[in-house]
Amino acid sequence: MRVGLLTGGGDVPGLNAAIRAVVKRGVGQHGHHIIGFRNGWKGVVDGDIVPLTRSHIRNVLPIGGTLLGTARFHPHSAEDGMDAVLATVENEHVDALICIGGDGTLHAASKIAEAGVPIVAIPKTIDNDVWGTDASIGFDTAVTIATDAVDRIHTTAESHNRVMLVEVMGRHAGWIAAASGIAGGAEIVLAPEQPFDIDKIVRFLKHRHRAHASFSIIVVAEGAMPAEGTSMQYEMQLGQFGQIVAGGISERLKQEIEQRTGFDTRVTVLGHIQRGGTPTPTDRILASRFGVAAIDAVTRGETGVMTALRAGEVELVPLADIAGKVKHVPQALLDVAAALA
Amino acid sequence: MRVGLLTGGGDVPGLNAAIRAVVKRGVGQHGHHIIGFRNGWKGVVDGDIVPLTRSHIRNVLPIGGTLLGTARFHPHSAEDGMDAVLATVENEHVDALICIGGDGTLHAASKIAEAGVPIVAIPKTIDNDVWGTDASIGFDTAVTIATDAVDRIHTTAESHNRVMLVEVMGRHAGWIAAASGIAGGAEIVLAPEQPFDIDKIVRFLKHRHRAHASFSIIVVAEGAMPAEGTSMQYEMQLGQFGQIVAGGISERLKQEIEQRTGFDTRVTVLGHIQRGGTPTPTDRILASRFGVAAIDAVTRGETGVMTALRAGEVELVPLADIAGKVKHVPQALLDVAAALA
Amino acid sequence: MRVGLLTGGGDVPGLNAAIRAVVKRGVGQHGHHIIGFRNGWKGVVDGDIVPLTRSHIRNVLPIGGTLLGTARFHPHSAEDGMDAVLATVENEHVDALICIGGDGTLHAASKIAEAGVPIVAIPKTIDNDVWGTDASIGFDTAVTIATDAVDRIHTTAESHNRVMLVEVMGRHAGWIAAASGIAGGAEIVLAPEQPFDIDKIVRFLKHRHRAHASFSIIVVAEGAMPAEGTSMQYEMQLGQFGQIVAGGISERLKQEIEQRTGFDTRVTVLGHIQRGGTPTPTDRILASRFGVAAIDAVTRGETGVMTALRAGEVELVPLADIAGKVKHVPQALLDVAAALA
Amino acid sequence: MRVGLLTGGGDVPGLNAAIRAVVKRGVGQHGHHIIGFRNGWKGVVDGDIVPLTRSHIRNVLPIGGTLLGTARFHPHSAEDGMDAVLATVENEHVDALICIGGDGTLHAASKIAEAGVPIVAIPKTIDNDVWGTDASIGFDTAVTIATDAVDRIHTTAESHNRVMLVEVMGRHAGWIAAASGIAGGAEIVLAPEQPFDIDKIVRFLKHRHRAHASFSIIVVAEGAMPAEGTSMQYEMQLGQFGQIVAGGISERLKQEIEQRTGFDTRVTVLGHIQRGGTPTPTDRILASRFGVAAIDAVTRGETGVMTALRAGEVELVPLADIAGKVKHVPQALLDVAAALA
Repeated sequence: MRVGLLTGGGDVPGLNAAIRAVVKRGVGQHGHHIIGFRNGWKGVVDGDIVPLTRSHIRNVLPIGGTLLGTARFHPHSAEDGMDAVLATVENEHVDALICIGGDGTLHAASKIAEAGVPIVAIPKTIDNDVWGTDASIGFDTAVTIATDAVDRIHTTAESHNRVMLVEVMGRHAGWIAAASGIAGGAEIVLAPEQPFDIDKIVRFLKHRHRAHASFSIIVVAEGAMPAEGTSMQYEMQLGQFGQIVAGGISERLKQEIEQRTGFDTRVTVLGHIQRGGTPTPTDRILASRFGVAAIDAVTRGETGVMTALRAGEVELVPLADIAGKVKHVPQALLDVAAALA
Repeated sequence: MRVGLLTGGGDVPGLNAAIRAVVKRGVGQHGHHIIGFRNGWKGVVDGDIVPLTRSHIRNVLPIGGTLLGTARFHPHSAEDGMDAVLATVENEHVDALICIGGDGTLHAASKIAEAGVPIVAIPKTIDNDVWGTDASIGFDTAVTIATDAVDRIHTTAESHNRVMLVEVMGRHAGWIAAASGIAGGAEIVLAPEQPFDIDKIVRFLKHRHRAHASFSIIVVAEGAMPAEGTSMQYEMQLGQFGQIVAGGISERLKQEIEQRTGFDTRVTVLGHIQRGGTPTPTDRILASRFGVAAIDAVTRGETGVMTALRAGEVELVPLADIAGKVKHVPQALLDVAAALA
Repeated sequence: MRVGLLTGGGDVPGLNAAIRAVVKRGVGQHGHHIIGFRNGWKGVVDGDIVPLTRSHIRNVLPIGGTLLGTARFHPHSAEDGMDAVLATVENEHVDALICIGGDGTLHAASKIAEAGVPIVAIPKTIDNDVWGTDASIGFDTAVTIATDAVDRIHTTAESHNRVMLVEVMGRHAGWIAAASGIAGGAEIVLAPEQPFDIDKIVRFLKHRHRAHASFSIIVVAEGAMPAEGTSMQYEMQLGQFGQIVAGGISERLKQEIEQRTGFDTRVTVLGHIQRGGTPTPTDRILASRFGVAAIDAVTRGETGVMTALRAGEVELVPLADIAGKVKHVPQALLDVAAALA
Repeated sequence: MRVGLLTGGGDVPGLNAAIRAVVKRGVGQHGHHIIGFRNGWKGVVDGDIVPLTRSHIRNVLPIGGTLLGTARFHPHSAEDGMDAVLATVENEHVDALICIGGDGTLHAASKIAEAGVPIVAIPKTIDNDVWGTDASIGFDTAVTIATDAVDRIHTTAESHNRVMLVEVMGRHAGWIAAASGIAGGAEIVLAPEQPFDIDKIVRFLKHRHRAHASFSIIVVAEGAMPAEGTSMQYEMQLGQFGQIVAGGISERLKQEIEQRTGFDTRVTVLGHIQRGGTPTPTDRILASRFGVAAIDAVTRGETGVMTALRAGEVELVPLADIAGKVKHVPQALLDVAAALA
């Protein structure tokens, strides 16, 4: 078999571990040829390929990023994109595709599956919002990095009697915020799932700083928003590709808090460091299991599916089931964050 | 309500996070009095108590160990132990107990529940072998430490063309070995669940060093054993409290491998570093969720249960259901380890 | 003896290690009373004190921040500030002061020494620009954090073919930029010591991306500036207390580079995470040695001095010698950064 | 010029950073050919070479170990070893050698220099005992790993009321023990420089556990020894290559302490993890500076020297000056360790 492999969307730690698993299992045990496409779907459209052998994957397990390169490019949004994908699949005699990616890539995968190409997807996103799986590659590492940052900022907050705002990724779902907020012991966690009321935040801070402690940490997901009808106006600023402009919401919050409380308030926007570097063991194991499961599924001819973690087991879910859905942080987890504030 | 709280058995990272959650939620939101017992069940037997308030739990979230102290002591194994526990419960007017521990503590908890004391248990063990829950406090941190060690040893193995044996904890179950073996890219993982054949190991090493690479890493659970009828004799050495003597199996393996292959072979026994230090975010979150769930259960009068993680949700399982059972590494995970060797 | 102790200026990792050393040595071996002042010079001015005993310093060695609190407040800049300091010294019967701080605190110390108060200073600054000492508390940890960030950003840069700008602290000196740039393998390091020419940077990037690699990492000290007469206009933005507004120079550079090269360019401003969290062993050892040396000097009556590291030995240098001087990055180190680009 | 490059002796983190610097500077700026020898002096003797280009050193900066391989083999100790080295130098038209190594390699280098081969040495050793330089590659990383271990063991010691012995490397000098002992807050540091009296240790432990705390941490260098005439008998066990058998001294100490105090005492032997994995920024910078200095010296024809760090500057010292000398831990540093016990 000739199996095409690509990584699409933003890079996350653990992609190389998944690539390694597909190649080790595919070449070493199934005897397949694995064809890598460079820079995500762009490489498929352009026919930019690199045959992957065991030598390509030596020592990549602990390395972040993706040896194949990636790009935020989606064939179904580009002119003649889908046709180009199908042409490459035919010209390169690709029997099946494995694509590792987030929302955009999974959407592309379901379109390509509909067009008749055997495809298996592997979910990755530091935001953890891919529906149908308990975990996606990259999330655990992102939470670890964000928690490390909250820990560091904790000592400054306490030493200087400040309110510290830490802005983490999470446009549609507040998984990183909730997890690093609980793990780092933040006083307040703001997630897109639960629009906030600035008046309540200010009351909480005033009470806390009067009664208990002279500092506070607030972890803010980039997609957090004030509740409608509350006293804070905020227009989300969107950049290229629709991502939220970093620092948007937290800079606004800083102004409101300083103005209303008089507390010295500082912002740290974690940004790109959340998605790079050595993956945690959890992400390496998840990626390894997903990689093995994906190439095994392709080999069995079970396609049009995504690998998923469910209650500790790796399963396959139909791509059609997950399209357009977002996995939100459950109320129970937000309640734990609130209970331990 | 007056709620007694204790930590029993070996210490693990995340115990303080669970204590903090019980106290924050119990005192701050339910208005309970939390009575800490020092050094596990020993403190219950001796009536050695410390009332826990918010000031005791300041800044303990990222700190390993347990501020209450712990001991490997079980009341049901000590003379008059159970009577002493019941006496303390009565004398201190304790309405319910929360105990955080592993096998031994859970066993004690079920005995005490049978004796009519309302009790909720929280599972902790770096070995991850508590039945009935997907995860126990301490395991994720132990895997992270073990993987870090395997990563470090990897560069030495490769630079010196050696076989490196890394012995990790896991007497009855090979969870740490399987997880750190997959995450660290070990060539061989030896777990108690799968008795090994030294002849096969030697053949594999000889083939690999001839054909592919001049080094190998073997992760060995302390409880790994040769299969019956195979050509290696090994008597497990047990120390005080029945724990396996560190270095037992790996030193024996080193001798066999060196003798049969001539490869320079070295042993590293990770030992105590696997159970100390700052807990990972995953362990802090798990401990926080378990702590909140335990005190909430006690408050509702739902006792005789253990908090458990199941498919991402925290649930309560009857103590009677878990007694005497061991959660083994599933074959699927051992297969992934083997597939990526 | 009654010895006053305070930490001033921005917090850095290692302050608690120094406090611990002063108290352990001072109380335990010299039999002194150690009086802590809260929140830096503000606590001296206000007479806000806390007697420090062995119980205050338990377990603080690996904890970032300062248990005494700190503030960016200088008595010589405040009205009647110096008089208030002298009054507190007299009222509290303080025989000598030990102050741990950076530029501002050292300046205050020299003023107070001139006014006749026996004082010993301990240098701390993540910027490493205190003159007269090879190292100051906090720098090694800051470099470690910044290098970790550059490592993480490296994998994203490479996976996405981007130019990544990482802005680190360093207003007057580029120590963190030079060190994390060399350690992280940055292509370009921009330090205040060496005003840059944007035309050269653009030429270098174009050449590199054409000939060698499709990504680049630039580490920028917040105080980096374009050389006079070069084609980039830039007004440094100063915030409260005269610190440079984060993201100022790097955001400007991003615009220039994107405009002139067309390369996708992103900015990460590390900000507060550089100054918090667990200190490295190097910072703990330095702080411990400085703390012991300071209390020993006070005990011997050798005051008006600062502890300094010189060629591996701890020495004492007169406060008068260091006033108003900045320790710049030597050309040799910037040359190494350039040589390995 | 054709410059030969090798790494000898035990591997340490930072070797790849030095190799990278030699190649980047040598090939990229001086236009030299760099010839790597595989597995240390063995590769020189056998003529086992690999030409090193920029592609070999991509992404190796943060990777531990050595891409050239290494071995504990010394040409001056092997039959015809020196002749074979000289033959290879002539046959491969090597104009000069750069060797990165510890005691043994430096000794070989001085012999080879005497034989008329232009050679520059770069010191590496986690033990930090190379004479003539303030620092050698690998030490800072080893101290960081050892301190991390002491931190982890601290929480177990405290939770279980134990005496914990941590054995670190250091056969002839106790640098790692002193540094990680101070940084980790150990109660006792045992170094080869200061033979210990077991009676004093036992008295100290008994007093401490009665008066202050119920746990203690002892960091022991593998080469620590009882003072002559004291009441503990100990024969150092030497393995192959004369290294001390791990666990020798600490296992003996454990027996003595348990017997004489009754305190539960445990041993952790760090072993190989001290010398592997990602180098710290300090080691990467030191290695980069040494690599640049070495190839620059070779280019200028300044040979028969070793690169050295002195008061923050890189200098060159004659190989003849350092032969047979050991850099011991100064009394002042051992005094700081004792002062903060």
